[in-house]
Amino acid sequence: MAKKQLNVALIGYQFMGKAHSNAYRQVARFFDIEVEPVLKVICGRHEQKVRAAQERFGWQEYATNWEDVVARNDIDIIDIGTPNNTHAQIAQAALKAGKHVLCEKPLATTLEDARASYELAKKSGLVHGICHNYRFVPAVAYIAQLVREGRIGKVRHFRATYLQDWIVDPNVPLVWRLDKSIAGSGSHGDLNGHLIDTARFVMGTEFAEVIGLQETFIKKRPLLADTEGGLAGFKAAQDMGEVTVDDVTAFLARLENGATATFEATRLAPGRKNYHRWEINGEKGSIVFNQERMNEFEIYLTDDPQGVQGFHLVQSTESFMPYMSAYWPVAHIIGYEHTFINLVHDFLLAIVRGTPFTPNFEDGYRNQAVLSAVERSCETRQWTKPEK
Amino acid sequence: MAKKQLNVALIGYQFMGKAHSNAYRQVARFFDIEVEPVLKVICGRHEQKVRAAQERFGWQEYATNWEDVVARNDIDIIDIGTPNNTHAQIAQAALKAGKHVLCEKPLATTLEDARASYELAKKSGLVHGICHNYRFVPAVAYIAQLVREGRIGKVRHFRATYLQDWIVDPNVPLVWRLDKSIAGSGSHGDLNGHLIDTARFVMGTEFAEVIGLQETFIKKRPLLADTEGGLAGFKAAQDMGEVTVDDVTAFLARLENGATATFEATRLAPGRKNYHRWEINGEKGSIVFNQERMNEFEIYLTDDPQGVQGFHLVQSTESFMPYMSAYWPVAHIIGYEHTFINLVHDFLLAIVRGTPFTPNFEDGYRNQAVLSAVERSCETRQWTKPEK
Amino acid sequence: MAKKQLNVALIGYQFMGKAHSNAYRQVARFFDIEVEPVLKVICGRHEQKVRAAQERFGWQEYATNWEDVVARNDIDIIDIGTPNNTHAQIAQAALKAGKHVLCEKPLATTLEDARASYELAKKSGLVHGICHNYRFVPAVAYIAQLVREGRIGKVRHFRATYLQDWIVDPNVPLVWRLDKSIAGSGSHGDLNGHLIDTARFVMGTEFAEVIGLQETFIKKRPLLADTEGGLAGFKAAQDMGEVTVDDVTAFLARLENGATATFEATRLAPGRKNYHRWEINGEKGSIVFNQERMNEFEIYLTDDPQGVQGFHLVQSTESFMPYMSAYWPVAHIIGYEHTFINLVHDFLLAIVRGTPFTPNFEDGYRNQAVLSAVERSCETRQWTKPEK
Amino acid sequence: MAKKQLNVALIGYQFMGKAHSNAYRQVARFFDIEVEPVLKVICGRHEQKVRAAQERFGWQEYATNWEDVVARNDIDIIDIGTPNNTHAQIAQAALKAGKHVLCEKPLATTLEDARASYELAKKSGLVHGICHNYRFVPAVAYIAQLVREGRIGKVRHFRATYLQDWIVDPNVPLVWRLDKSIAGSGSHGDLNGHLIDTARFVMGTEFAEVIGLQETFIKKRPLLADTEGGLAGFKAAQDMGEVTVDDVTAFLARLENGATATFEATRLAPGRKNYHRWEINGEKGSIVFNQERMNEFEIYLTDDPQGVQGFHLVQSTESFMPYMSAYWPVAHIIGYEHTFINLVHDFLLAIVRGTPFTPNFEDGYRNQAVLSAVERSCETRQWTKPEK
Repeated sequence: MAKKQLNVALIGYQFMGKAHSNAYRQVARFFDIEVEPVLKVICGRHEQKVRAAQERFGWQEYATNWEDVVARNDIDIIDIGTPNNTHAQIAQAALKAGKHVLCEKPLATTLEDARASYELAKKSGLVHGICHNYRFVPAVAYIAQLVREGRIGKVRHFRATYLQDWIVDPNVPLVWRLDKSIAGSGSHGDLNGHLIDTARFVMGTEFAEVIGLQETFIKKRPLLADTEGGLAGFKAAQDMGEVTVDDVTAFLARLENGATATFEATRLAPGRKNYHRWEINGEKGSIVFNQERMNEFEIYLTDDPQGVQGFHLVQSTESFMPYMSAYWPVAHIIGYEHTFINLVHDFLLAIVRGTPFTPNFEDGYRNQAVLSAVERSCETRQWTKPEK
Repeated sequence: MAKKQLNVALIGYQFMGKAHSNAYRQVARFFDIEVEPVLKVICGRHEQKVRAAQERFGWQEYATNWEDVVARNDIDIIDIGTPNNTHAQIAQAALKAGKHVLCEKPLATTLEDARASYELAKKSGLVHGICHNYRFVPAVAYIAQLVREGRIGKVRHFRATYLQDWIVDPNVPLVWRLDKSIAGSGSHGDLNGHLIDTARFVMGTEFAEVIGLQETFIKKRPLLADTEGGLAGFKAAQDMGEVTVDDVTAFLARLENGATATFEATRLAPGRKNYHRWEINGEKGSIVFNQERMNEFEIYLTDDPQGVQGFHLVQSTESFMPYMSAYWPVAHIIGYEHTFINLVHDFLLAIVRGTPFTPNFEDGYRNQAVLSAVERSCETRQWTKPEK
Repeated sequence: MAKKQLNVALIGYQFMGKAHSNAYRQVARFFDIEVEPVLKVICGRHEQKVRAAQERFGWQEYATNWEDVVARNDIDIIDIGTPNNTHAQIAQAALKAGKHVLCEKPLATTLEDARASYELAKKSGLVHGICHNYRFVPAVAYIAQLVREGRIGKVRHFRATYLQDWIVDPNVPLVWRLDKSIAGSGSHGDLNGHLIDTARFVMGTEFAEVIGLQETFIKKRPLLADTEGGLAGFKAAQDMGEVTVDDVTAFLARLENGATATFEATRLAPGRKNYHRWEINGEKGSIVFNQERMNEFEIYLTDDPQGVQGFHLVQSTESFMPYMSAYWPVAHIIGYEHTFINLVHDFLLAIVRGTPFTPNFEDGYRNQAVLSAVERSCETRQWTKPEK
Repeated sequence: MAKKQLNVALIGYQFMGKAHSNAYRQVARFFDIEVEPVLKVICGRHEQKVRAAQERFGWQEYATNWEDVVARNDIDIIDIGTPNNTHAQIAQAALKAGKHVLCEKPLATTLEDARASYELAKKSGLVHGICHNYRFVPAVAYIAQLVREGRIGKVRHFRATYLQDWIVDPNVPLVWRLDKSIAGSGSHGDLNGHLIDTARFVMGTEFAEVIGLQETFIKKRPLLADTEGGLAGFKAAQDMGEVTVDDVTAFLARLENGATATFEATRLAPGRKNYHRWEINGEKGSIVFNQERMNEFEIYLTDDPQGVQGFHLVQSTESFMPYMSAYWPVAHIIGYEHTFINLVHDFLLAIVRGTPFTPNFEDGYRNQAVLSAVERSCETRQWTKPEK
């Protein structure tokens, strides 16, 4: 039986470009689905680099002008993996051109732009998604099932940290992620954005009010000669530039489900590489997840028999867990890249089957409303409610 | 050589009474010191119970009236292990009577009373101590050395949680710790009090400002027939009473050393029994400690050779670590009770050698100033500075 | 620049067929290499199934007769992923036909056949490989570097366990892996085979002598209607058949490097899914690895400073570690499938660059010599030296 | 009510002397029992040292001649904590003198002597015990209950390691534990002795046959000036002496309950301080224990609901677990010394209540029969059955 083909254009070719390319290439190799994405065209400003990416990642063509790509008739999906300050513009143009859009987080660098993208998407009738890929970790998707089914009862506490250390060395230069005009935010947007999405996804709740604290400890860093720099291959220049984003943002929250919550994101925690760890405490149990060990989770259940009560260390690689039947036998683990494959799987099915897709632009917008409320709370030093 | 003897009177005979009795009994059996505490008299209101405690814990006498005990000429040390609302009164009486005083935490149930006790102690010339026993975990004392020596550089973040679950069952009755008039506070005073002390001790800093959030999820609980109840042997009565303390208190802080900090204490975290865990991130490393595994800690050092960088799991039972030479060979672990033995060791030496003792009433006061600032911040919803 | 293309034929399409297909498809997408494997033809006995596999895994053609495939002129590499009892025959035919051969473990089901395949390969001048994929876990390859460089000094002990539980339920039917005539061996060949390879690889040593113990606890199991069964989808028939392989094999060994060693493989350890864990103790340190957490390892170094000595938990996802620069940023983990991609990478480069490839048929043979010696030692109850 | 008093004489005052003294001193302070041991006399050869121990550990008297002590009429219990080569002689003399005897492990340095002590004890009508203190870890006692009740079904595998590193430095001198004439054995007797006892206790089975492997890697070490040396404060002399005991002994076993088992004891495993870890696999579950974290254990149960199956990390500090009601609230941990308190508790009750006490001299003998069989198997290179 011939599969339905969907032509994809990917804007951006660096870290996210690589992850998204892999997802399109692999999705129909692992999942038995009626649709096959075609890696049509990859687009970036630097011809030489995008051409290398085209070849490496297996795209049919490359392009250097995203407006041209968006205008093409043969493209079904626009996937946006560019620096943050371009997301809104591209997403809106793509929606206007009638394309399904998958956008890397954040939806925009301002809440106004995020709302505009969301409203356009809502009216469009197209499938729109925001790449909160950690929802697609099988353990996380499974935990969301457990929590929503009431396995641990009504949730009382959520505590989440996302700790990294890649800028703890003050000689790490001023890459675009440290420049507010491009990145929009620092640890807060990049890492708390993930934690906020997890909270919303796993518990199915919204944020009632927040109050936060932000700090930039290393205020100046060496300028990069080449601002395309990326995360690797730092070469420091002589001159110093100002870091315009936060190193750390912590905040307290009250959630609409009645739970209390704490959040902290930092890139200055030595030894923490991708320590995206959270714990939920409910009336009848607790659950712990850590992205660094994404193939397992811990669960405590108060209804376990006396004498054997304790956190269960569950390997989340069983074939009955979300997405896992596509892959390998139990305990033959999957990795970071599979979160994107799972996400693309759901996204493609939404297009061909008409099923709803989340996280979508509404999720992207609500996420930024929380991020933005936290930032305002840091400035005003007041508890703040996110925009609805 | 005859040892100097110091006569001790212990007020209180329940959980803390047992722990303190053990400490006096054992200190000179483990440590080679020139002083021997004499377990002179144990005091409590219920004659039958205190008499049983006298015999069980090895005291020479018992008494039922603490005023009489404080007035005795043959007592050198008054040790206070009673419910919280009596601490200040007994401590002040003891100081006025010229006794050295070791007081269970908190120093008082109001900041005013705590300040009064502290000021009296400061003028007294006597040795005064507050039982923040976790300073005396060898790992904790050793970590404080490492941090103060600069081993992990300037501290940027401190994140601390103290999670328990002993009241997650709504049938747990209204024990005194859930009654504000006796306990003064709930999780906040009981558990955040420990975390605040740890922060002050390990980093040698004070709190600049705080903002918090509190919640009581289970607002009514069965009344106890016998209000002496203690932690065990709950027998629920028919009638319900109001819980007047917090189940959870979380707060953000800025510390005077420039670090950002997060704190959370709850008794509603299923599976967490005594999860008193904290992490420090400095410029050059990180340290993690968890009281449930108090004989070990984790340390990450940025100056480790490339390729073997990772958190070291250190067994804190080496004989060169604080207090450990008194006990057993490496990895032959010690327990909760030894924290009190170590504390009493330092307290006795302060009396006979004139060395300074910490934590003392100043620490008790400063701790309560932070606790109190957090409580005010919960009411006013404003960032709040602790009283100096 | 046009890449050199190598045409691959894969015999077998089940678990290993899927893993190998993925490796060929992905290798040039992750690694920047001058060679591109072409997924030419996949071969299996059942036309319908192999056709489905062809489509799913992305092969150009399918075939049902391996002899025909081996005879084709347009094939450069024969990859063997069939049940164990066919490995030797196919491998020898492929070598005779002048093909490079990559063979799933074991090389054969008898030592004689393994030796024959090895000797043919040695004379052939072709590239030959045996799929001990765990050598290609970045952590394992990195540990081998550390050990061979002397980082932990002369090795004294190696202790290894490979524990699974997938047949602990007596209703699991008699799949081919439990039939000696097809599988050749049970836990021993399947799991100890991996441990023996790890020992040889990581320490660069051979086995001097061994003595073992074997047991089959569950002696009869339901017969399968469909003997193609695979690991999943067990459907038990009425009749029972005899299990002809071992459930557990444990053995002691003396290695040629002077170390003592212990090994145990079982499929009857409840809760152990893929617990492939080993520890090396050397004069100056120890290293621990567990395949279930394949993106990390532990190392203890006696030359660490006093007071911070402890096992380092190292995340083996740093870009300077073997193979890792091809993938994702640190702590963005890889999975089971990447071990095959790494293996194929090395195998292809051996063909196009003429570099040596290990593990090859010599490794396959030496491995089986140890397995065989253990089996003989179980029968004779005597210490036994592996055939050289 | 006046308690029954039992007068104790302790022979030996070093590491075990300290641990046993503490146990007698503390037992009636923690447990509510009808008996109170009196620390009557401590005995050792070196007057100055034993006198210091008398004072430090709280004994009424000291003595330097054990024969005199055994002959005293006012002594009820002889406790033997001397070097291994004196155990049998003292134990037999004490039994002949009509004393209850608690003997440190091993019962003797030869199997013949062990049997003689056991037979004398059996006929004596007195209470006799061997200090396999790890049976009295609450977790271990509780696990034994679970296993004997069938919680994990019929046991199939037992795997045990006892790893230390205190002699990995070749400059560690020739202390008595490295001298066969005093210690009788090395890692084998000292550490495998514990593992064998654990196997017998937890599973309630005997050993059918064994085969082992032994090695001494560091064959010469500096002589000690003072052969009383003990474990700490090594001061190396110029001259070298021969190490006459094993560094490592590993062995395979078949147990009478049908299980297969593996054992390994070494003192040359860098980073392992007291890594006394074992795992049991049964038909319906698995249990793991590690003495370094003696206040917890892991259990896996195949009857857990699907989706939450995993090892439970159980804190073994619940008041309903063996011995724990004597101590502190849950997760307020106990330590190494409490194993001796628990042991002495049971031993005293055996005397005053006539209840049976295990482990006793039969256990000591059977343990040595296994140790001895392993040693013979190392010499003969044959599977060997322990003497019955």
